[in-house]
Amino acid sequence: MPRLTLALLILLTLLSACAAVQRSEPTSAAPRWAIAIHGGAGVMAGLSPEAQRERLDSLRRALSAGRDILSSGGSSLDAAERVVRILEDDPLFNAGKGAVFTEAGTHELDAAIMDGSTLKAGAVAGVKTVRNPISLARLVMQQTRHVLLTGDGAEAFATEAGVERVPNDYFSTPGARRELERVLDDRRRKQAAGASADLQSEPPSTRMSTVGCVALDTAGRLAAATSTGGLTAKRWGRVGDVPIIGAGTYANALAAVSCTGVGEQFIRHTVAREVVALMTYRGLSPRAAADELISNRLNPDDGGLIVVSATGEIALVFSTPGMARGAADSSGRFEVGLYREMER
Amino acid sequence: MPRLTLALLILLTLLSACAAVQRSEPTSAAPRWAIAIHGGAGVMAGLSPEAQRERLDSLRRALSAGRDILSSGGSSLDAAERVVRILEDDPLFNAGKGAVFTEAGTHELDAAIMDGSTLKAGAVAGVKTVRNPISLARLVMQQTRHVLLTGDGAEAFATEAGVERVPNDYFSTPGARRELERVLDDRRRKQAAGASADLQSEPPSTRMSTVGCVALDTAGRLAAATSTGGLTAKRWGRVGDVPIIGAGTYANALAAVSCTGVGEQFIRHTVAREVVALMTYRGLSPRAAADELISNRLNPDDGGLIVVSATGEIALVFSTPGMARGAADSSGRFEVGLYREMER
Repeated sequence: MPRLTLALLILLTLLSACAAVQRSEPTSAAPRWAIAIHGGAGVMAGLSPEAQRERLDSLRRALSAGRDILSSGGSSLDAAERVVRILEDDPLFNAGKGAVFTEAGTHELDAAIMDGSTLKAGAVAGVKTVRNPISLARLVMQQTRHVLLTGDGAEAFATEAGVERVPNDYFSTPGARRELERVLDDRRRKQAAGASADLQSEPPSTRMSTVGCVALDTAGRLAAATSTGGLTAKRWGRVGDVPIIGAGTYANALAAVSCTGVGEQFIRHTVAREVVALMTYRGLSPRAAADELISNRLNPDDGGLIVVSATGEIALVFSTPGMARGAADSSGRFEVGLYREMER
Repeated sequence: MPRLTLALLILLTLLSACAAVQRSEPTSAAPRWAIAIHGGAGVMAGLSPEAQRERLDSLRRALSAGRDILSSGGSSLDAAERVVRILEDDPLFNAGKGAVFTEAGTHELDAAIMDGSTLKAGAVAGVKTVRNPISLARLVMQQTRHVLLTGDGAEAFATEAGVERVPNDYFSTPGARRELERVLDDRRRKQAAGASADLQSEPPSTRMSTVGCVALDTAGRLAAATSTGGLTAKRWGRVGDVPIIGAGTYANALAAVSCTGVGEQFIRHTVAREVVALMTYRGLSPRAAADELISNRLNPDDGGLIVVSATGEIALVFSTPGMARGAADSSGRFEVGLYREMER
């Protein structure tokens, strides 16, 4: 019986290896560059047509900026950083301006960037006065021997590095404040009902609009970048998956991944790294690897992720009703979407 | 030619699958429980025979405590937490009491614990007044929906959770202070020599005595726990691999891993997760998977790691001259070591 199982396993390995080789066979049509972006999964319920149009326009603007860098021979790192900066500056998304509020009514921002060609990475967690956390993460990668700087220490590094600073309330928006009030009301109601001892009793956030970008440049280098304000009403210095290399952000020579969703789940399942591991060890396509994580390992509605491979294949996968996203490549593809369908 | 390569790949896959199945075939001799511990890699140069004996005694004491829990049917989580608490309380190691100093002359502690049977995990980074960070990490796992709490926020959670607190200088030891002075002298000398603009110019630390434990209990559940004071003279709120799930600490149903060494390298290579991925997808033994990471992917002297598998196999692998470590299992194995050789 073990021998039969072994034989079956070998057969399956054979078949999947063949399938993988066919799928990833480079062709003359392989894009010279490719880029994908996201602006969060799961937040799209009840958006008016106007609000939808506004988000799609924002995504087009960010995607165009990335496309312009890549199509003129710029680096994937430059493209990923630029796209994420634009989305950080955009109040519609939960990163930079527009970030959610902590329980204390402040903003604490996390970001990470990774260079797939060197495995170098930089990340910051809990920064409060840095206008563009993704650029600070890149400076951590390039100017220090460290990967992750946190809290007041990361602010001190920001001062030494000379990045643009803003007062913490620069990040505040009316939408994020309403969301905070809703969550705090819910928390108070539950505590009044006697759930005070249960620290796990927290309402799910509806504002999961973390932003991210993955890119392949014409030199074949991959990069991933992700930025977020985290969870509405978060406390205790909670940090999610975004600045955790291998969880919310990862890139190597084969693929780059950026995630959005219930951060803790992405940490436990080391999602970004595992997508690339499945491509490496099981020969899965970006789409199949992303599907395995999102559909089989994570829970329904946990979120989504974007992948770009070294051959320019893009996957945009989510289990939530929607994910703000976009994709473009050197073949002329340029599309954005919020729900199932994409549009140019 | 691609077909030939494919055929060769298939043959290799076949061979390695067969080898793996043979290696991991459970036998009547498979241990019912197993435990491995480490007290850091790379710090053992120039230790007097007396200092060596002292460290070996500390390792024996911690290992015995873990063995006693597992041999009496206790859980791997209880064993891993208990062992790491003992090593945190021991001033010889860079975790809890004995932690290294930051540049500012304080202590900032990181720890993580993961339950392989549920993929639940808890971690803290940058805590300053919690006597046993590993126990706070376990409470993060068990009492919140979060994985990682940081800085002042983690301290606030410690207050709510009611864990034992100490003044920050409780962690101070003369050895760690001498190490701080040595590193700061070196830093000042380099800056005086004109290296001030080069933020990467930092001396390597000789004090890498992070502690960790991996355990398999008689119910077949795996757990991993790691705790550290980080890098001597660290600044900017630097956080290393220890509290990063998948980097310094990881456990699932197949294996548990705890790492020690140059934290940034362990983050970039998602070392703990990758050891288990190689076991899963390539069928490697714990030893072969650990060797692949330590010898082929990381740089020489980056550090070491310990693994225990669901079948009770233990691997203790390091590229440094030494690693403080120990291993025990239900077959009667009980050994500790600092350099290449082990002793009972």
